[in-house]
Amino acid sequence: MPTSEQNEFSHGSVGVVYTQSIQFDSLTLEGGETITPLEIAYETYGTLNEKKDNAILVCHALSGDAHAAGFHEGDKRPGWWDYYIGPGKSFDTNRYFIISSNVIGGCKGSSGPLTVNGKNGKPFQSTFPFVSIGDMVNAQEKLISHFGIHKLFAVAGGSMGGMQALQWSVAYPDRLKNCIVMASSSEHSAQQIAFNEVGRQAILSDPNWNQGLYTQENRPSKGLALARMMGHITYLSDEMMREKFGRKPPKGNIQSTDFAVGSYLIYQGESFVDRFDANSYIYVTKALDHFSLGTGKELTKVLAKVRCRFLVVAYTSDWLYPPYQSEEIVKSLEVNAVPVSFVELNNPAGHDSFLLPSEQQDSILRDFLSSTDEGVFL
Amino acid sequence: MPTSEQNEFSHGSVGVVYTQSIQFDSLTLEGGETITPLEIAYETYGTLNEKKDNAILVCHALSGDAHAAGFHEGDKRPGWWDYYIGPGKSFDTNRYFIISSNVIGGCKGSSGPLTVNGKNGKPFQSTFPFVSIGDMVNAQEKLISHFGIHKLFAVAGGSMGGMQALQWSVAYPDRLKNCIVMASSSEHSAQQIAFNEVGRQAILSDPNWNQGLYTQENRPSKGLALARMMGHITYLSDEMMREKFGRKPPKGNIQSTDFAVGSYLIYQGESFVDRFDANSYIYVTKALDHFSLGTGKELTKVLAKVRCRFLVVAYTSDWLYPPYQSEEIVKSLEVNAVPVSFVELNNPAGHDSFLLPSEQQDSILRDFLSSTDEGVFL
Repeated sequence: MPTSEQNEFSHGSVGVVYTQSIQFDSLTLEGGETITPLEIAYETYGTLNEKKDNAILVCHALSGDAHAAGFHEGDKRPGWWDYYIGPGKSFDTNRYFIISSNVIGGCKGSSGPLTVNGKNGKPFQSTFPFVSIGDMVNAQEKLISHFGIHKLFAVAGGSMGGMQALQWSVAYPDRLKNCIVMASSSEHSAQQIAFNEVGRQAILSDPNWNQGLYTQENRPSKGLALARMMGHITYLSDEMMREKFGRKPPKGNIQSTDFAVGSYLIYQGESFVDRFDANSYIYVTKALDHFSLGTGKELTKVLAKVRCRFLVVAYTSDWLYPPYQSEEIVKSLEVNAVPVSFVELNNPAGHDSFLLPSEQQDSILRDFLSSTDEGVFL
Repeated sequence: MPTSEQNEFSHGSVGVVYTQSIQFDSLTLEGGETITPLEIAYETYGTLNEKKDNAILVCHALSGDAHAAGFHEGDKRPGWWDYYIGPGKSFDTNRYFIISSNVIGGCKGSSGPLTVNGKNGKPFQSTFPFVSIGDMVNAQEKLISHFGIHKLFAVAGGSMGGMQALQWSVAYPDRLKNCIVMASSSEHSAQQIAFNEVGRQAILSDPNWNQGLYTQENRPSKGLALARMMGHITYLSDEMMREKFGRKPPKGNIQSTDFAVGSYLIYQGESFVDRFDANSYIYVTKALDHFSLGTGKELTKVLAKVRCRFLVVAYTSDWLYPPYQSEEIVKSLEVNAVPVSFVELNNPAGHDSFLLPSEQQDSILRDFLSSTDEGVFL
């Protein structure tokens, strides 16, 4: 972390950061196939202490990446969780060593459909094997072990990141002290699957799809843009969209839309295709849809093996991952007498709330982490 | 209504019915353009009495048509509101004369994008003028007047049909005694516009779109199917989708989806393109998005001119047209001292609830209509 550059940035920024990459021999997936080699793109903020017991793994959501905090050289926008990660922030880099890695199956540096197949020198694309949330976590475990970390101080994430945190608590119960699950679920409902399904069908319907073996010159960009447009509606709330757009006329795009919300969604779709790969969109949404720790008694049985404290955060306005899904997790933890703090915030921003700046959320994260730190239970 | 055939059908069916068509010289649209001639496809059930004061106009939703009740020759499925229309049913054809017409801008027989342009012998397609909910209602008024009906006993509809009913109460305050508005809204919110917008963008993104001047051999069917798939999610509820599909594997379609909800949506999309026109989808969704009687004080001002009784029905599980939008209408009517009955049903089926069989809904409609009939206010 280049402290020398901190002053150039907003208070508490980790400054200029670089995404690093590490290779491991291989990773055997839950499905039985093996990724050889396994590549992981990651960033770290703060310093790992001698005991190696101050590390926090933050896990990103569907379209996120390893760049969680600070600024890449020349960038104006910081990482996706910069409000919460930095010196003096809730994920305090003066205190904790923060690790953020790109999920496998993604398209931001870790092994995935864009990875070149050594056997033929071409990207795997749709021939890349199916990747589960469990596989993403197993890849992260290799990275953590590489740092010589046996037990993480915490694993934290929202949405798909929350699923990874949950998976950590079940797959590696003795490897984390705290688990922070925000705007997430123990498994996708039919409605959540349905939204991802339509997104995938939009990509499959694109004439450039070619079974996923498209060229970079002719990508299924229209299909991917449609998937993103639809997804974006589900990330916001009715209330927030009303405040932000109401029934206002479009900004530009008057040829293709009559409303501001339309031009906004079109922009979101078009900008997304420049930074995301259509195959990865399908792999990652399938990982989401297939993730299942069950619900009710089934979930209670699965969570019986966890050995860490939990903070579960839900948002009243989040209709994509409704609070009842978080409550389901909390109930199952309580039945197992697992220490858990549950907070439902009435932030109006919908599912995206976990990503957005909120003093309330900041202090909730801060208090939960420091109370553990002092061995005090909330 | 061929009563002779009634016995062949379920109790209370109007039996075999035929969609009829009528032409009027022209209709001048709110936008200033004129449709010449104006064609309206309609069906009627029951008998108009001598006083011509027993007529009820039922208005269909986005993908509906004039076929509201009974059976078309050889069909196994009856019209879209058959549960509620027929002898002894809530819209009792022994008592009332029911009229149902296809909206203009649609594709089921009334003037719209499929209408042939007399000037060049080709369908108007995307050169058909913009149609508003007000225009749809003005076309219906011509049909009503053709029957010599001055005052309708009632206008009833759900979703877009509810908007037409609302528009009737405002545009022709002295032409209806009762107005039934179900699962509807006085104007679309940004979120409602957003879902329609993504549907339209899916059609515009289809390589066959050709600015709406596509051939019938090469229609933008993939785009229209995607629009329908996404729309369909919004018509159902989270709860109902969980019950109906859960996380079950697909029925067929294992090449393109891993889940039952996926194969269901794919089927819904594919079957929709056989019965609906992509241009009409764009015209009708635009009519929905542009309809606005305002909200709050603005709506109260607009509704000050109504002269009929109202029944407003909302559904707790309807997240596309949330109950608060119905409450908004009810409040504005109450401020104007308009007699209004409001019912919020906790039917779990979501937005589609208004279309589905429900004894509770049946008796609510029945009581509202008969109480008026007897001059009794609820």
